[in-house]
Amino acid sequence: MPRTSNARAQLISSAAKLFQRQGYHGTGLTQILTESGAPKGSFYHHFPSGKEELAETVMHQAGKEISGLVMSAFDRSDTFIAGVDAVSLSIADWFSRSDFAAGCPITSVMLETVPASSRLGTASKEVFREWSGVVTSAALRDGYDMQTAKSLGQAMVIALEGAWIVARAERDPNAFLTAANMVKSLANTPPK
Amino acid sequence: MPRTSNARAQLISSAAKLFQRQGYHGTGLTQILTESGAPKGSFYHHFPSGKEELAETVMHQAGKEISGLVMSAFDRSDTFIAGVDAVSLSIADWFSRSDFAAGCPITSVMLETVPASSRLGTASKEVFREWSGVVTSAALRDGYDMQTAKSLGQAMVIALEGAWIVARAERDPNAFLTAANMVKSLANTPPK
Repeated sequence: MPRTSNARAQLISSAAKLFQRQGYHGTGLTQILTESGAPKGSFYHHFPSGKEELAETVMHQAGKEISGLVMSAFDRSDTFIAGVDAVSLSIADWFSRSDFAAGCPITSVMLETVPASSRLGTASKEVFREWSGVVTSAALRDGYDMQTAKSLGQAMVIALEGAWIVARAERDPNAFLTAANMVKSLANTPPK
Repeated sequence: MPRTSNARAQLISSAAKLFQRQGYHGTGLTQILTESGAPKGSFYHHFPSGKEELAETVMHQAGKEISGLVMSAFDRSDTFIAGVDAVSLSIADWFSRSDFAAGCPITSVMLETVPASSRLGTASKEVFREWSGVVTSAALRDGYDMQTAKSLGQAMVIALEGAWIVARAERDPNAFLTAANMVKSLANTPPK
């Protein structure tokens, strides 16, 4: 059993893994407790409102991890276009390492709970906007105008989320290449 | 209570609506029976393997409906590019009519069950390939070469699935416009 100081982190990490594989409703509290090794008392201590609050925390934490990954992919790339490839590869790798079994941690919870849960609705919207903001900033740094940079931000989130779904069904990360190609085409020839 | 001849159709349609809003595990058999008005005996008569078999049927039927909608959008459009706009509008309308609450019927089930269920994994893959095949055929009819037409087919499915997710979080169909713009850019300037 982990020490109390680790229990919160263990609960978040176990819940994230389970939600990504079997969704929100398919993941019971008992399974989260078993996988994390955290005592039930510590669960209600850290998440007094229960599973919904845990899911909200999972979304924000996974959101930050993916933001970091997107930011670092753009930072090590010379151009926005090269950054788009680096981001797609990096998400594709993350997905492949799960043996093609783990979906996006935001989408996996959101599709079952939104709009019924306004708390999880707000969290999903915030995380997607945070990701698209990171992409928009990278596009601005490479000289795109604000309107184009904003639509590239939204496009990148749409393309990656869609690729994650098709890649899961196909058990093949190739869809992430197509996603990158779409965003790069939009960056090269933004529509009037 | 519907007549037995209608029970199967009612079960499929009620399950589809519920899966799209609250996912696969969040939808219990009791709720499907209540919403459909079908007697429990008729459920096991029509779906002897249970809920998984019902979900597989829902996926194939919803898959065919969306294929039909995509096909008819391309049929009434003069060019592939115009067809991409028509398809996106048509999915955006479908989504908006659900008051931004109903996700893609395939994805809603797939993310919770695949790869654990090979039956639902096969169904998801088949439906996504069917959709992308319809788009590929439309691209071929408009003169694109086979390789480009195939990647446009996959791109359209990725873009629409991703848009459906972002639109659900935002409760706003604008993401479908961005999705259409990406696919049109790819159609105008396919990458080397």
